[in-house]
Amino acid sequence: MSPAPATQTFRAIDVIRKKRDGAELSKSEIEGLVSAYTCDAIPDYQVAAWLMAVVIRGMTRRETAVLTDAMLRSGEVLDLSSLPSKKIDKHSTGGVGDKTSLVLAPLVAAAGVSVPMISGRGLGHTGGTLDKLEAIPGFNVNLPVPRFRRILETCGCAMIGQTAEIAPADRKIYALRDVTGTVESPYLICASIMSKKLAEGIDGLVLDVKTGSGAFMKTEEDAAFLAELMVETGERMGKKMVALITDMDQPLGNMIGNALEVVEVVQILRGEGPEDLKQLCLELAGWMLYLGGASGSVEEAKQTGEKLIASGTAFEKFRQMVELQGGDPRTMDDPKLLPTAQHTMTVTSTNAGYIASIQCEQVGTACVILGGGRERKEDAVDPAVGIVLHKKVGDAVSLGEPLATIHYNSEDRAARARSLLEASFHITDSPPREKRPLIHRVIEKSGDKN
Amino acid sequence: MSPAPATQTFRAIDVIRKKRDGAELSKSEIEGLVSAYTCDAIPDYQVAAWLMAVVIRGMTRRETAVLTDAMLRSGEVLDLSSLPSKKIDKHSTGGVGDKTSLVLAPLVAAAGVSVPMISGRGLGHTGGTLDKLEAIPGFNVNLPVPRFRRILETCGCAMIGQTAEIAPADRKIYALRDVTGTVESPYLICASIMSKKLAEGIDGLVLDVKTGSGAFMKTEEDAAFLAELMVETGERMGKKMVALITDMDQPLGNMIGNALEVVEVVQILRGEGPEDLKQLCLELAGWMLYLGGASGSVEEAKQTGEKLIASGTAFEKFRQMVELQGGDPRTMDDPKLLPTAQHTMTVTSTNAGYIASIQCEQVGTACVILGGGRERKEDAVDPAVGIVLHKKVGDAVSLGEPLATIHYNSEDRAARARSLLEASFHITDSPPREKRPLIHRVIEKSGDKN
Repeated sequence: MSPAPATQTFRAIDVIRKKRDGAELSKSEIEGLVSAYTCDAIPDYQVAAWLMAVVIRGMTRRETAVLTDAMLRSGEVLDLSSLPSKKIDKHSTGGVGDKTSLVLAPLVAAAGVSVPMISGRGLGHTGGTLDKLEAIPGFNVNLPVPRFRRILETCGCAMIGQTAEIAPADRKIYALRDVTGTVESPYLICASIMSKKLAEGIDGLVLDVKTGSGAFMKTEEDAAFLAELMVETGERMGKKMVALITDMDQPLGNMIGNALEVVEVVQILRGEGPEDLKQLCLELAGWMLYLGGASGSVEEAKQTGEKLIASGTAFEKFRQMVELQGGDPRTMDDPKLLPTAQHTMTVTSTNAGYIASIQCEQVGTACVILGGGRERKEDAVDPAVGIVLHKKVGDAVSLGEPLATIHYNSEDRAARARSLLEASFHITDSPPREKRPLIHRVIEKSGDKN
Repeated sequence: MSPAPATQTFRAIDVIRKKRDGAELSKSEIEGLVSAYTCDAIPDYQVAAWLMAVVIRGMTRRETAVLTDAMLRSGEVLDLSSLPSKKIDKHSTGGVGDKTSLVLAPLVAAAGVSVPMISGRGLGHTGGTLDKLEAIPGFNVNLPVPRFRRILETCGCAMIGQTAEIAPADRKIYALRDVTGTVESPYLICASIMSKKLAEGIDGLVLDVKTGSGAFMKTEEDAAFLAELMVETGERMGKKMVALITDMDQPLGNMIGNALEVVEVVQILRGEGPEDLKQLCLELAGWMLYLGGASGSVEEAKQTGEKLIASGTAFEKFRQMVELQGGDPRTMDDPKLLPTAQHTMTVTSTNAGYIASIQCEQVGTACVILGGGRERKEDAVDPAVGIVLHKKVGDAVSLGEPLATIHYNSEDRAARARSLLEASFHITDSPPREKRPLIHRVIEKSGDKN
């Protein structure tokens, strides 16, 4: 009522109202909100109202970068400057059967570019890198930062989970978004991903933004919007960035489930395994090596990757990392030493024709139902269960031919997964006219948006 | 992740997301949210996110009516069916110098229509009916409902504050809106006002929606939007409704401040007092009597009102109500028995000409600064202080002529109020070309909107 004093301190309500009315927030307004929330100086309900205003009104590129930076600086940023090599990481927005991280870390490290990878767990229908690594008996993803650094120095790659010190603002904001209907905002997704990834002290980042029936971004348009936003945000913060929009309209590779995916990773590192997974790994590795300055072009870097696989160098690097992180290296040579499900059952085709499509999210959900993923954050994961696909989109199939094998430990869960899996395959008389590309688009430079 | 069960219980997150995406909520969704929040079954942060989505996405007429009804039914609805007469109330969106309620209750009751009035306190730059009534020594606005009912039966009107039993959902939601930047939504304002007013068990309601520099709705367009929304909401709930868009571009009447406004109320009820206040009281009383079926037309009802003032019947009714509610009836005859400020000072004109405008919100704020209103909810109010205007818009003024008199109890506060008051008068050489009407518009029937 009385006139406002000349010097105003930070007032959350003013920031909320400003975003509500669609205006651009200043650096100090965003930083004030993030730092106040991180230290519990403003209540959840004010941040909830602000988050909803952000979801509906959006953010400018400048605001998104400032938010990312404020969340990044809410915690510790790793200083890996003691490592002489370039440090490049990869982030995927999540999919079904996506085990590329386990291939990329050793493959890229084998070429002389360090990969300090901090990953997450599976949530929803998608798998998580940490769950896959933990399928290897003894593998420890909860290393203290000094140990993480030492393994990186020794072997060029290391893979751990998020520590309490990294981006605490993101942890608080993410938990609130989850319960206030404010998850689905590219600006908030970008800030969440980038604040965590940039806390790794990396020089560059390759983004694998998935699109299709198994991705969070179902349309290529949405995926490209998020990809551009993340590329620009990273560039504003001085990082080398590229985003690949890649296909997630069917599972990647043939195996879904934590231990099964480790088996397929070993196949790829031995020069075997399914072609789609192999191609995507080489493409992503190519970009990581290119951003890391190890090659003059992506094509050249892909050839380097192929050679490192053919020579067994990449596989040996993986075995070394597994051993350094406490995992049993014998599992690399004998997959039967990995957790194995008690039972298998085969899903066969009830007609002849061609696989027109595989509803990818349903396949991921089937794996979650088997126990391979989480329905709630606190659920335990069964590393042994999963699904092996025998047919992919475009393949011919005859009546009674196996479509997939279910690896399971519970009859009841297997029955539920089976019916979901059966419904996921769409079979037609003629082969699909168009084949979806594996790489939809590469986004190197953002446009000049505000 | 697993398929949703066939029967879903109420999930706040689904309602939040639906409104976030701009969809219309169902009756059970809105009712579920309001009842869950009233009994603390969902947290503030979820309701905060939902409120922000409502502010930005808006609501349909149907949703607004359902929300109003859910908030109304969160508490007690008075049953005044034992009173044989029709029960009509009036609500004002708030202004400066607006003391019409104190005139209308006895005036309308004197004509045989009951007025069960539950009012609020001043907040912001506007005054509140309860604060004005409490300027009368002994007047008790905190009556239990049975006593309220008995006074209504005896005298036809009674004026109290909100009880804990009335619309508890509104109390919780309003407190949350205040701190989450979600006050400014016509849908939420409508539901808040109407849920409280309809809990009075009335047959009809006259809405006085203010517009101009002293109103919360500065433009006539915003005022009309809110007015139509409230009229339609009331009609959907079976009430007789009318809204008058009235002028609040300068203070109403000449006196601002709690005891001073009681003095002016007595003047009006004695057939004296300023013309604008008198005209507005007769207009509003006319509509109240018309809605209450006491007259065949508003014009006829206005004449009835004039007669009841001229005969002293309305004044006697006011004295009776004051006495029944514990107030000292002698104050009605001798204003000096009302609280009186220790000092007065005169604000004089520094040039000659005509009053082109009076910045009305500033005049209200000047009264708050004197102590006549609240800067925060918990502030006490000084009933004696206030402002008496000697000039209104359009009046000629000569150099040094008094513009207003400040009644004060603190030199410091008076000095601050004086400079604000001086800055509120805008004086020009020629008289203003157009006179703003007292009644801008009458909204009887809502349009046929969804």
